[in-house]
Amino acid sequence: MTSADLAAELRAVLPTDCVLSQDEELRPYECDGLPVFRQRPALVVLPRDAQQVRQVLLTCNRLKVPVVARGSGTGLSGGATPHAHGVLLSCARMNRILAIDPKGRTARLEPGVPNLRVSEAAAVHGLYYAPDPSSQVACSIGGNVAENSGGVHCLKYGLTVHNVLGVRGFTMDGAALELGGCVADGPGLDLLALTIGSEGLLMVVTEVTVKLLPRPPCVRLVMASFAEVHHAADAVAAVIAAGIIPAAMEMMDRKATAAVEPFVQAGYDLSAAAILLVEADGTDEEVAEQVAEIEAVLRKCGASTLRVASSAAERALFWSGRKNAFPAAGRLAPDYYCMDGTIPRRHVGKVLDAIAAMELRYGLSCMNVFHAGDGNLHPVILFDANETGSWERADRFGAEILELCVQLGGTITGEHGVGVEKLNSMCVQFSSAERAAFEAVKEAFDPAGLLNPGKVIPTLARCAEYGRMRVHGGALPHADLPRF
Amino acid sequence: MTSADLAAELRAVLPTDCVLSQDEELRPYECDGLPVFRQRPALVVLPRDAQQVRQVLLTCNRLKVPVVARGSGTGLSGGATPHAHGVLLSCARMNRILAIDPKGRTARLEPGVPNLRVSEAAAVHGLYYAPDPSSQVACSIGGNVAENSGGVHCLKYGLTVHNVLGVRGFTMDGAALELGGCVADGPGLDLLALTIGSEGLLMVVTEVTVKLLPRPPCVRLVMASFAEVHHAADAVAAVIAAGIIPAAMEMMDRKATAAVEPFVQAGYDLSAAAILLVEADGTDEEVAEQVAEIEAVLRKCGASTLRVASSAAERALFWSGRKNAFPAAGRLAPDYYCMDGTIPRRHVGKVLDAIAAMELRYGLSCMNVFHAGDGNLHPVILFDANETGSWERADRFGAEILELCVQLGGTITGEHGVGVEKLNSMCVQFSSAERAAFEAVKEAFDPAGLLNPGKVIPTLARCAEYGRMRVHGGALPHADLPRF
Repeated sequence: MTSADLAAELRAVLPTDCVLSQDEELRPYECDGLPVFRQRPALVVLPRDAQQVRQVLLTCNRLKVPVVARGSGTGLSGGATPHAHGVLLSCARMNRILAIDPKGRTARLEPGVPNLRVSEAAAVHGLYYAPDPSSQVACSIGGNVAENSGGVHCLKYGLTVHNVLGVRGFTMDGAALELGGCVADGPGLDLLALTIGSEGLLMVVTEVTVKLLPRPPCVRLVMASFAEVHHAADAVAAVIAAGIIPAAMEMMDRKATAAVEPFVQAGYDLSAAAILLVEADGTDEEVAEQVAEIEAVLRKCGASTLRVASSAAERALFWSGRKNAFPAAGRLAPDYYCMDGTIPRRHVGKVLDAIAAMELRYGLSCMNVFHAGDGNLHPVILFDANETGSWERADRFGAEILELCVQLGGTITGEHGVGVEKLNSMCVQFSSAERAAFEAVKEAFDPAGLLNPGKVIPTLARCAEYGRMRVHGGALPHADLPRF
Repeated sequence: MTSADLAAELRAVLPTDCVLSQDEELRPYECDGLPVFRQRPALVVLPRDAQQVRQVLLTCNRLKVPVVARGSGTGLSGGATPHAHGVLLSCARMNRILAIDPKGRTARLEPGVPNLRVSEAAAVHGLYYAPDPSSQVACSIGGNVAENSGGVHCLKYGLTVHNVLGVRGFTMDGAALELGGCVADGPGLDLLALTIGSEGLLMVVTEVTVKLLPRPPCVRLVMASFAEVHHAADAVAAVIAAGIIPAAMEMMDRKATAAVEPFVQAGYDLSAAAILLVEADGTDEEVAEQVAEIEAVLRKCGASTLRVASSAAERALFWSGRKNAFPAAGRLAPDYYCMDGTIPRRHVGKVLDAIAAMELRYGLSCMNVFHAGDGNLHPVILFDANETGSWERADRFGAEILELCVQLGGTITGEHGVGVEKLNSMCVQFSSAERAAFEAVKEAFDPAGLLNPGKVIPTLARCAEYGRMRVHGGALPHADLPRF
């Protein structure tokens, strides 16, 4: 059916201003935070509440029209890349904080609420929402749920899945599901955990209940410089090995600090091969004790200089450099490609060496920023999309990094999701039996395959075409089971 | 087909001693830890490794014979109750600790390894496995995965799902799945979390990789007496509200302490209406600080006496009473029925009042033991199976408690699972759309419905027959979406 017919069908069930169909109205929705993948949707809808979402789904299900749900479009794996013949469902207008329960320490939110707004609204009660993606000013709770987003403080406080208590939403056929609750565990299959990180494949979430935490009375940030990247990497493992779980433990290499320092002026040591940002939070006593332990370990591992932020303002400044590292890459090259692999912590140094070798092989520069504490790498590959073959090389460079992560017992994504970007890498991470299980679960929720089609789960044909052998999933060491 | 034919088929693919078919050999497998449900299986198989498990599944799948997997049989919801025409697959012989990685802090285990053995084996590295069901001496890791088991320390350290990094196993058709890994998050749908707590409906797990934690250098246990059960309940909420997350916070009412004290001699205050056991762990400084805070809050809430265990031995003694509370019920009545509802903490007092009223109505006594910190109740209903109608009354009593939990925003099971026991209550907890989603996911893994059939997910017919209205799922407060 034509876009015009589809628009007419949707305008019959939604207020007119909820349906965008003009070319210039659609253009802003062509891509999410991974602009190398672009597609104009047939239509964009902007529902204001759950019932309007349901009407969109019922209509599209009847007409067999694909639906791609989108939060703020800050995703980095093309999870919200539109479908050419589909409806892009933006949750931007569903941005109300429905309730905050300070006694129960929960917040009930519409999916379009920006991540940071939750903590701002909870602040009067001395509470906050822990997961803090770098994009937290813009990214939405609904998008966080779809991608199981992380952030610099997930080392201590967990990913989105550890901080969401329940969701409500609709499957493609309009059936209402209420998953999870306000108490630990729940009966039956854990469909809540299944939905979190499902990248819009299973249902459209219309309400999210999150856990709020008491703001720690004391927070201190230690910044350490290292003359050798390996020493910084070893220090990360050493801190954890010492039984310390910092609130955050981030690493930036010299390329990253050099890119960000000039405009953030965070006071990063540009002579250092790498810096670590290690944060402790808790009571004054706990923090004092932990900072002392952290400093001792870092020194032992060869930290050349150590600085503790002397004020909240300085702490914010130290962090701002880290949080602006990706955009700062724009100063080094016209385009950048941010990867998101995970590895067991002990392999950080090994992977950095391998990436350095790949830089030469692909003729592209790569700066490294990562959630070192939980082994989540964010290599940022610098390229120039206008230069022929540059993106292709960046793409292969990225894929090689991810395959190395899998070989070392890690995964192809820590917090950015698979989307369209990592479909090939999924062939490397998972066996055909495992991909078949994903497919079967997808079909259980969405038999017609209309929700965010073509994302996350690669077809068998695609994997055959990609042709890489599946290396050991790395999930568990020493594979000793045959694969079928 | 006859049991004899089935035995012949299985003996063709397994060593003879792995197949039990004699009546006296089958009898011990008639029930798990909920003996009111009993069923002799057609056969019992005792595979020694993953490949033998796969052979059993391939054979049973070909012959369309149901398979019920079983760990140590300590489950309390009839999750391992055999199928009359099916094979009971015991993992008892798959009890090897395959690897302990002290640097990575993981242990790779066969499913039959008893929970406590993991911590014993990790002790030489100063590590332990956190989830500690009361049955931890006997219950197996595989059973813990199936039930997403908890324990007294789950308040601070989480349930099984928070402590398992990966599993390996086979679906009914013999396909090998490797789910999760040794790094945070994973790409694609979270089938690991889906499998944990799936009560044997989706796959048979043949290997489990768990997270190990450093044993805290200091642990202290505070025992507090309260003249009023309500004061104890309020104290629980007050401790959490004060921003303290104890390692454990358990409550026992007078009936429970009176039952257990005579043979454990834990030194419980039998004059108290209820006692709380509150444990703090961490460094000496942290614990000293937290114990002081806890004592202050408990006093403020009306604790009459406070005792801090003066030694590890005394601490173990205080706990032993709690951990033996269920068997101790045997001193009060010939039979007992342990419930497992969850509620938001603030309602603990309200539920205890309601239970007291039910005791009169059903003419049965109920002692109360619970993981108060996370609102997980374990009312233990006392009855006499030999007295006509006694079990039926206990069953209705239990169901009414669970329905009250749902009404208050809780759930029908915190850690014991649904099994066969709570099928009716599932009709109350979930809408038909939600039960349909469970069913669809079950079919995605096991289209023929051969794995642990008849458990966890009630049929529509059964719910219709049970006839209870679905009360609000309670997962999220203030339901404002219509149900379809």
